[in-house]
Amino acid sequence: MFTQNKEDSIRALGETGLIAQIRDWLGAVAPQSPVGMGDDCAVVDTPKSKQLLTTDSVSYGQHFDDNVSARDAGAKLIKRNLSDIAAMGGQPGHALLTLLTGADLRIDWLRAFIEGIRQACEQYQVPLVGGDISSLPDGQFSSVLSLSGHLDYAPLLRSSAEAGDSIYITGSLGGSILHKHYSFEPRLAEGQWLAQSDVCSALMDVTDGLAKDLRELLPAHCAAHLNLDSIPVSEDAHRCAATSGRPVLEHAFCDGEDYELLFTVKKNADLEAFEKNWGARFPETALTRIGRMGKAMGETPYVDAKTKEALPWIKGFEHLS
Amino acid sequence: MFTQNKEDSIRALGETGLIAQIRDWLGAVAPQSPVGMGDDCAVVDTPKSKQLLTTDSVSYGQHFDDNVSARDAGAKLIKRNLSDIAAMGGQPGHALLTLLTGADLRIDWLRAFIEGIRQACEQYQVPLVGGDISSLPDGQFSSVLSLSGHLDYAPLLRSSAEAGDSIYITGSLGGSILHKHYSFEPRLAEGQWLAQSDVCSALMDVTDGLAKDLRELLPAHCAAHLNLDSIPVSEDAHRCAATSGRPVLEHAFCDGEDYELLFTVKKNADLEAFEKNWGARFPETALTRIGRMGKAMGETPYVDAKTKEALPWIKGFEHLS
Repeated sequence: MFTQNKEDSIRALGETGLIAQIRDWLGAVAPQSPVGMGDDCAVVDTPKSKQLLTTDSVSYGQHFDDNVSARDAGAKLIKRNLSDIAAMGGQPGHALLTLLTGADLRIDWLRAFIEGIRQACEQYQVPLVGGDISSLPDGQFSSVLSLSGHLDYAPLLRSSAEAGDSIYITGSLGGSILHKHYSFEPRLAEGQWLAQSDVCSALMDVTDGLAKDLRELLPAHCAAHLNLDSIPVSEDAHRCAATSGRPVLEHAFCDGEDYELLFTVKKNADLEAFEKNWGARFPETALTRIGRMGKAMGETPYVDAKTKEALPWIKGFEHLS
Repeated sequence: MFTQNKEDSIRALGETGLIAQIRDWLGAVAPQSPVGMGDDCAVVDTPKSKQLLTTDSVSYGQHFDDNVSARDAGAKLIKRNLSDIAAMGGQPGHALLTLLTGADLRIDWLRAFIEGIRQACEQYQVPLVGGDISSLPDGQFSSVLSLSGHLDYAPLLRSSAEAGDSIYITGSLGGSILHKHYSFEPRLAEGQWLAQSDVCSALMDVTDGLAKDLRELLPAHCAAHLNLDSIPVSEDAHRCAATSGRPVLEHAFCDGEDYELLFTVKKNADLEAFEKNWGARFPETALTRIGRMGKAMGETPYVDAKTKEALPWIKGFEHLS
């Protein structure tokens, strides 16, 4: 089932191509978003509310290594899912945990991993209601967490931004490899507040980097016109740039695993009032207007608002690349 | 995080001990069954019905190898989950699919794997609404599927059998390694019919073998008194016994992956009428009364109804052993 020929392997498709291919193979079994794939969660109607379903994983050697504590790895697993619920403006429901592990896993390591999950479950009031344990060869460990959630109002999708809408981001971007990829806090309260506001038009969380993820919010025939001076660059992005030699903005755009909320606000909204309300409600969560959805300029998705030139950082983290 | 010292590794706990340990570590975050762990699915109340949540996985080299086609491996993944829904008497809802894979996975292999999932989704009307793709080192492949379901009546739990109840099993047992571990059909219609009947007291599906799984249905202070002559032994169990040299009943009790329904019928029920109704409703699904919940005899969970002696096959398949 594995091959050395690159063109026959899924490496040839890349993550985005692979997902498109799988949707095609699944046909009618895979409904369109919001019921199906294509947003941060699936949205399933239940009699009295909308149910959310999402899943995420961590694997040893891929999403964490020996430099990340077991507790932080466990917390990261559930917080990644919680960030997806936040990115729909929903409230978390119930969790299922799958462990795929070699039998040589240390008990004290697993205890700390579960402890990290438990603390996050307590903090965000998520009952862990079931799961599955399965063997892998010695030395291997992956864990998958699936999370339900609910919404009592319409979900904030990725596909509903319009030309003229402003683009906002919470927190700061880049350099997450140093700490933030496991120490972040999912923006649940902020997402719920946005979903209940009447000014937010589209919402997602930034996991693969602004460069890759912002494409998801682009309306047809639009490019994101970005004010580069306003991009909130993290201190860790500066630290990474100092050692990598690459531009600090490239780190901010492409590093990924920021777990910040990226959203658009309707073009007719009172931005000043919106930002003031945000500051009163979330004084500790920075909010930055980084641009607006403007006219397309050829094929480029991102335009420098000042120079009107295409921006070079158009790729984020691509799995399987 | 891995260790060569057996006593420090999860190998020392075994699967059952590990699950108990994890529940202990999770504390109040892990509710009791039926809301939480301990049955085939978690049962979560929603405003108008009960929601079911379950998850299961397949890994290359563990649950299937190069002798199983990709299509069968994919179908097995979703059918394992459907069997859990059947074991609660529920109806399947929506699926989430996680792929953890080396980038050297062959595209045509994955296409056939997805095709197996698609066909089962179509057959059982399960929309696949989302998922996650993540990288593993070359040569590795695991896939996890989470499934929701629903119930419009009380779920059939494992814990509700009583002394005097009769023990029934569908189909036949043993030798599943030859074919049945991937070619089985989840007993959804049968489970739903049992949940709506008023005579079934407890229900589960047989995944780790009758020997391990029947323990789950034992009421307090009871042993299962089994009629060994009546155990429905599959033809494949006979084939396996012919090459293994072990007793055919040991194969029937211990091989596992039968995906049959194991359930109890209330002691005051009209068994003749129940069996007749079953035969009329499910003429192609064999039904066998294999014993009853009787008096405990010391520590042994299983007693030969004829000789009143303890049965030796008290262990089924144990992961991580």
